[in-house]
Amino acid sequence: MKKFEVAVIPGDGIGKEVVPVSLKVLETVAEVHGGIKFDFQSFPWSSDYYVEHGKMMPDDGLKILKNFESIFLGAIGNPALVQDHIALWGLLIKIRREFEQSINIRPAKYFKGLKSPLVNPKDFDLIVVRENSEGEYSEVGGRIHKGDDELAIQNAIFTKKGTERAMHYAFELAKKRRGHVTSATKSNGIFHSMPFWDEVFNEVKEEYQDVQTASYHIDALAAFFVTRPQIFDVIVASNLFGDILTDIGGAIMGSIGIAPAANINLNGKYPSMFEPVHGSAPDIVGKGIANPIGQIWTAKMMLDHFGEEELGSKLLDIIEDVTNDGIKTPDIGGTSSTEEVGDEICRRLKQAVSV
Amino acid sequence: MKKFEVAVIPGDGIGKEVVPVSLKVLETVAEVHGGIKFDFQSFPWSSDYYVEHGKMMPDDGLKILKNFESIFLGAIGNPALVQDHIALWGLLIKIRREFEQSINIRPAKYFKGLKSPLVNPKDFDLIVVRENSEGEYSEVGGRIHKGDDELAIQNAIFTKKGTERAMHYAFELAKKRRGHVTSATKSNGIFHSMPFWDEVFNEVKEEYQDVQTASYHIDALAAFFVTRPQIFDVIVASNLFGDILTDIGGAIMGSIGIAPAANINLNGKYPSMFEPVHGSAPDIVGKGIANPIGQIWTAKMMLDHFGEEELGSKLLDIIEDVTNDGIKTPDIGGTSSTEEVGDEICRRLKQAVSV
Ligand SMILES: CC(C)[C@H](C(=O)O)[C@@H](O)C(=O)O
Ligand SMILES: CC(C)[C@H](C(=O)O)[C@@H](O)C(=O)O
Repeated sequence: MKKFEVAVIPGDGIGKEVVPVSLKVLETVAEVHGGIKFDFQSFPWSSDYYVEHGKMMPDDGLKILKNFESIFLGAIGNPALVQDHIALWGLLIKIRREFEQSINIRPAKYFKGLKSPLVNPKDFDLIVVRENSEGEYSEVGGRIHKGDDELAIQNAIFTKKGTERAMHYAFELAKKRRGHVTSATKSNGIFHSMPFWDEVFNEVKEEYQDVQTASYHIDALAAFFVTRPQIFDVIVASNLFGDILTDIGGAIMGSIGIAPAANINLNGKYPSMFEPVHGSAPDIVGKGIANPIGQIWTAKMMLDHFGEEELGSKLLDIIEDVTNDGIKTPDIGGTSSTEEVGDEICRRLKQAVSV
Repeated sequence: MKKFEVAVIPGDGIGKEVVPVSLKVLETVAEVHGGIKFDFQSFPWSSDYYVEHGKMMPDDGLKILKNFESIFLGAIGNPALVQDHIALWGLLIKIRREFEQSINIRPAKYFKGLKSPLVNPKDFDLIVVRENSEGEYSEVGGRIHKGDDELAIQNAIFTKKGTERAMHYAFELAKKRRGHVTSATKSNGIFHSMPFWDEVFNEVKEEYQDVQTASYHIDALAAFFVTRPQIFDVIVASNLFGDILTDIGGAIMGSIGIAPAANINLNGKYPSMFEPVHGSAPDIVGKGIANPIGQIWTAKMMLDHFGEEELGSKLLDIIEDVTNDGIKTPDIGGTSSTEEVGDEICRRLKQAVSV
């Protein structure tokens, strides 16, 4: 019996609604598998926690999390309680950094049963590999007061190591897929960091003669996500560009509410973290209608990470079928509740195995 | 008779094909108007020029341009000849900066006769006001070599003056439109500059009680351009975010080839510059099929700038009708040539006035 110790942080807003449903799905996966077991331990760290304690998590929070195999996160952020950048840098971004989760992987694909806003979604199936630890998200910078004027300076810092690491990951992934990597750049406008990014990309691609490549400026690339997403296989992008592209990825699927993500620690020193792309959605909290698919698909990415890829892809098939059969939440045109969607997925998981 | 002195820089690639056609349209506008006259003077500054002279324009290029009322630019860039960032910073970005063209305005709207890639384009009609002189496009930065590793540092610099200026422009514009301004931020991830951006936005909006506002992170905002563009009126964005959003704006209209832009000098010291959003498109050069609408719509923005708004909006109506009647280039599903589209627009201009 393999046992996986998972730290669970439901976080804020609908995080607290979609996480329990997803844990039920994971329990069901373990049950039908027979040879694995999850040990979930839940932590209430969130904006509410901040209001009570003046911080997003306790001082030894990272020390506690370090002992787990992975972290399963809902959503962080409640602008009514805590300023966004304080909340996020106190938990989400802190964990990504301190646990060297240097890669963020986010798939987007044509999804059965979802209405894409595109006339012709043409079976796209892509993965964005986002550099997750440096780049435009940097604490280096500050302000200068200068007479009447004031100045904010923001540094973006790209190391060769960090940039290469993301690119190698993208190329290795492409080798297991359709063998194509697209680089997201903006070297015509961003003067120092992006020409550097291009140089590193051109060096790294030499090592992968069997992988095809392309390089587009982020403005054109964002437009191509709308006009021809089917041309992409793996896209490698900086922290900010990856962030933007993956929201567009969610949009063209038909809902940001279904997009999953994995924050991967590559050196094995710390846990990886799994969290959907969507936020805490304060406007629909408490109604029981939050779409759980983003969180459940995220659970599937955690299964893959644990080496349970077969069950993972069975789970994804079931999510798609359930959606296609119309058992879905109102945001994607259904009338089902968060729980009903989760329960139906559990039911079909059991059925699939008992056959 | 009002006379407008216009410096014309066709630039690279299809710039050299769509600019002459647009000048013909402007000549026709002058003819049917009767009271205005254009004095065009053309400059061959481009990547070809760079190959011959080692620079994008002569040393006194800016001095020459300074005497004109405005600059009408085609497209700059030919990666086969000159590295993108060298070409662009040697001409396009240089002019924007040196001539204090601090605002870039780019409309996007549902356009008759174009196939939007969106299922439901729902009559959107928005304008992006892009800060055009600072922010993420900065020459401050460089590289550090550090043992095996190397580091690229990119500074983004936001002044209060520059940020306010863009925001005031957006609010004033909104007052003449539907009274709504959306701020493009990313203060949850970009630690220094974007919280500063938010602060300035919150200050400026206090001065416009009659204008409604919203603020979205750029990732969500980019997704909304795809899922519900009709919610936007005026969007104010940083240099980089404006760049990305306006390409998506082109995409949802149905083609980047029709999107226009104006680089506005606000203090009256220097000429403004008018250039379409699309690039030089080396792949279709010489075939006579480049879509001239982006450049002609850009000419319309120059007319507006000269105070000829009535003729400007007549011109835009005609462009839309011609497109809707199927006289259009292959990229948007027609079979007409660049010249045929231009000629038909001229014909209808004359007709509209002779009636
Ligand atoms: C060519 C490039 C430098 C430019 C920019 O990013 O400003 C272009 O994309 C634009 O939008 O005008
Ligand atoms: C909440 C925010 C800081 C975060 C990011 O930009 O990384 C989110 O948008 C994401 O994509 O995970």
